[in-house]
Amino acid sequence: MGGPTFLRWSNRRQAGPMACHQDSAPPFRLASAGKPRPEPPGASRIRTRPGSSSPYAPCTSGLLAPARSAAAAVAAMAQADIALIGLAVMGQNLILNMNDHGFVVCAFNRTVSKVDDFLANEAKGTKVLGAHSLEEMASKLKKPRRIILLVKAGQAVDDFIEKLRRCRDLKEKGILFVGSGVSGGEDGARYGPSLMPGGNKEAWPHIKAIFQGIAAKVGTGEPCCDWVGDEGAGHFVKMVHNGIEYGDMQLICEAYHLMRDVLCMGHAEMAKAFEEWNKTELDSFLIEITANILKFQDADGKHLLPKIRDSAGQKGTGKWTAISALEYGVPVTLIGEAVFARCLSSLKDERIQASKKLKGPQNVPFEGDKKSFLEDIRKALYASKIISYAQGFMLLRQAATEFGWTLNYGGIALMWRGGCIIRSVFLGKIKDAFDRNPGLQNLLLDDFFKSAVENCQDSWRRAISTGVQAGIPMPCFTTALSFYDGYRHEMLPANLIQAQRDYFGAHTYELLAKPGQFIHTNWTGHGGSVSSSSYNA
Amino acid sequence: MGGPTFLRWSNRRQAGPMACHQDSAPPFRLASAGKPRPEPPGASRIRTRPGSSSPYAPCTSGLLAPARSAAAAVAAMAQADIALIGLAVMGQNLILNMNDHGFVVCAFNRTVSKVDDFLANEAKGTKVLGAHSLEEMASKLKKPRRIILLVKAGQAVDDFIEKLRRCRDLKEKGILFVGSGVSGGEDGARYGPSLMPGGNKEAWPHIKAIFQGIAAKVGTGEPCCDWVGDEGAGHFVKMVHNGIEYGDMQLICEAYHLMRDVLCMGHAEMAKAFEEWNKTELDSFLIEITANILKFQDADGKHLLPKIRDSAGQKGTGKWTAISALEYGVPVTLIGEAVFARCLSSLKDERIQASKKLKGPQNVPFEGDKKSFLEDIRKALYASKIISYAQGFMLLRQAATEFGWTLNYGGIALMWRGGCIIRSVFLGKIKDAFDRNPGLQNLLLDDFFKSAVENCQDSWRRAISTGVQAGIPMPCFTTALSFYDGYRHEMLPANLIQAQRDYFGAHTYELLAKPGQFIHTNWTGHGGSVSSSSYNA
Repeated sequence: MGGPTFLRWSNRRQAGPMACHQDSAPPFRLASAGKPRPEPPGASRIRTRPGSSSPYAPCTSGLLAPARSAAAAVAAMAQADIALIGLAVMGQNLILNMNDHGFVVCAFNRTVSKVDDFLANEAKGTKVLGAHSLEEMASKLKKPRRIILLVKAGQAVDDFIEKLRRCRDLKEKGILFVGSGVSGGEDGARYGPSLMPGGNKEAWPHIKAIFQGIAAKVGTGEPCCDWVGDEGAGHFVKMVHNGIEYGDMQLICEAYHLMRDVLCMGHAEMAKAFEEWNKTELDSFLIEITANILKFQDADGKHLLPKIRDSAGQKGTGKWTAISALEYGVPVTLIGEAVFARCLSSLKDERIQASKKLKGPQNVPFEGDKKSFLEDIRKALYASKIISYAQGFMLLRQAATEFGWTLNYGGIALMWRGGCIIRSVFLGKIKDAFDRNPGLQNLLLDDFFKSAVENCQDSWRRAISTGVQAGIPMPCFTTALSFYDGYRHEMLPANLIQAQRDYFGAHTYELLAKPGQFIHTNWTGHGGSVSSSSYNA
Repeated sequence: MGGPTFLRWSNRRQAGPMACHQDSAPPFRLASAGKPRPEPPGASRIRTRPGSSSPYAPCTSGLLAPARSAAAAVAAMAQADIALIGLAVMGQNLILNMNDHGFVVCAFNRTVSKVDDFLANEAKGTKVLGAHSLEEMASKLKKPRRIILLVKAGQAVDDFIEKLRRCRDLKEKGILFVGSGVSGGEDGARYGPSLMPGGNKEAWPHIKAIFQGIAAKVGTGEPCCDWVGDEGAGHFVKMVHNGIEYGDMQLICEAYHLMRDVLCMGHAEMAKAFEEWNKTELDSFLIEITANILKFQDADGKHLLPKIRDSAGQKGTGKWTAISALEYGVPVTLIGEAVFARCLSSLKDERIQASKKLKGPQNVPFEGDKKSFLEDIRKALYASKIISYAQGFMLLRQAATEFGWTLNYGGIALMWRGGCIIRSVFLGKIKDAFDRNPGLQNLLLDDFFKSAVENCQDSWRRAISTGVQAGIPMPCFTTALSFYDGYRHEMLPANLIQAQRDYFGAHTYELLAKPGQFIHTNWTGHGGSVSSSSYNA
């Protein structure tokens, strides 16, 4: 497909009949992808946090395609391949990206002046068309009409679908609703996002070329976009992606903390370490930018990183992932800890107070081999990361069971392989594992990952022991190891929990020898419940 | 107040006017308190799990009291102090408990035959009255009429309130709704529960004598019941109680696991250790029953505990606590890990498969001093427990902020001090801490708990290091330590998270020197967002 040409829009024709069928609201919400505009190089500017930047105001994207086309009625003037509603920066960049790939896009926005602004500026000299009403937009669309809604989740989506529903002559035909996760931020939208579409699969053939065309590519050109599954599967996968992102970031923080406070490494030294790590199994966008961040110097020539307030924000998707994990009973411990670590970081004033009062271990200087311990940290990070992804895919698998979805796990790994924040070489290995065994129950049971973790585990345990003795908080390194050690134990101590529950609450238990039979024992001789011993008197 | 007398019910008189005002549904649900009946001593019996034992079918208790009494109209025949609706085992036991304390109780049940059964059996020879209709029940109640609803949460409560609402002549007056947490199981209900009432405080003077009369007593007779706060505060406190219970149980499991698999202790030896621990700061119901469970031998003379399937059930309150913590942004990590540990334990089949494949550390026998390491484990448990309660009270404090409640934290500790599953000497220390400083922001900042943790920390770190090297999963020991080490760090590595978020998403950050000003840096020189480096190509 060619690059941009210079045709401008002009055609107006009345829309044919269309009607909407919105799918039911998914049990989760999509991360905000909307962000402030890029700045000129080197610029730092001060913003007062805008009132509207609530963590509960995420964006969503959806695609509406009519169920039945009326090919014979397509007018010659209806030349747009797809329309996009919502001209914030993500929407604009997706339009320009589609334009780059040869698709004719019709742009529309509730505040219509934005359409003209966009056409006169960012979209100047492109094939992008504009519309000043929904009717005009519909008239410009080839059939089947494809429409991307890139507006805030919730009421805004409903409002727009309601408007589409109300449009004269659009009532008779079904609409195929697709909810798509979009990752990669504004640059991703512009040059190659990770796209995770789910919903009504009948829509897929109508949008596949566009979606895969504009998505990030990896390897020999494989697009980071494939059909995810029914209903809200696309948004769910995007939510888990974001949860995993929380985990990856916290793991890097723990490595940074150990480097900084145990090995007493300087910024240049730490940057170099992350650059080296980026040539190993850890090769990934987040490791790459961490090196860049560590190197970055402020206008005064000093490193910027240590000047930044250690109080992490969040927009909610990590939290929703952890809540989903609790709801569906899947031990996604690492994301849970990563979310809680951000909560703890945000209690900055309380921590300052506590730091003056609570003592840690005596400050013993590190006496081991620095280089060797640095490698221990790297392996601890790698092993923990494997655990986190294993847990994330466990959650996807459970959600698929809950909602009756058929998910393509290898395809999901490929979608995350490029274009998005967690993109990494590592995700290619996950794709390979599911290629080897599409029914793989758990990543840890794949030979590659099994060997990888086993190869790391001595280092992992050393890194944690050392950090524990030095008083470094490592919530994600440690929860990952506890998960690994728990998962590989045939016999956990939960038999004691069951005995306790039966003792004080007659909740019953099973015998190892007779699973499925629920037994109550009268442990005290006076009724299988809370003893009112003299203790209580 | 006297013991039981032998007066039986007989009075029937028409109810005066009454009307219901149900408070709005609380944002959480109460744990099930309903349980099977006690068995004869020594009995073990097999049950097939009943279909109705869903984790989503909890019980609730509520109290309805009329807002305005019409004392002049009280008939001489209206002699019951309080009515109770719902004659499952918890309801029956609460009635008998109230009867023991000299209160005349009127019993009612939707299935009316249960009233007669109860009067003819369990309540035979007591002052308990029965009613065969709501009208009859109302006629037997002294004014202001006090009614306990002990029925399943949700629809059942609504149905009953609707019925009360519909009752002829009961429409004119307001009803004061109280939602009360009840802990201690069926024996607690019978001989002294922990009661956590919240809701409309105007009701409190009318029910205080009864509630505090039947509650568990500690120390010099202080009742484990006090007014908690507005709206659903009573149920919220009960929910957090249950979450803490999950944590306490998991901590004991981790200690048991270390004893069993690192120190290779036998059951008698472990039982003795827990008995000894029960004479220390750990003195508590759960430690006491753990010793009893470890000693318990089956009919074949072998210990029962190792025969029990290590797959822990849950009814949901721990999960709701963890979800609330995520919702309100409070790092209640220990309860979260305890819930996830149960989830992992329930993946028994997958763990069996994994145990055959995944290798742990090489099995090195423990070579340290056994007695000394046992004390390390005890201190690890004690320190972790302090962290868990500190986190639980952080959640209560945040909920109070969210809902505008004024909570009496010392009073809550006293309510849990006796009568309930987590009852312990330890809770008396928490009460003391809030007595010393009612505005205490965090338990860890109290001198007693600060010293206690500092006194434990060397042991705590040793126990974890040793367990990590031995491959023992310790999700709660380790998350507690990570929390402690994080909480006492003035500077956490979350500055890196903020830098990353600004790098890839232009989310902005604050400088340590200028909190409140949100800054964006163009880290890459080509726009403050995801770089589309060659990495993606």
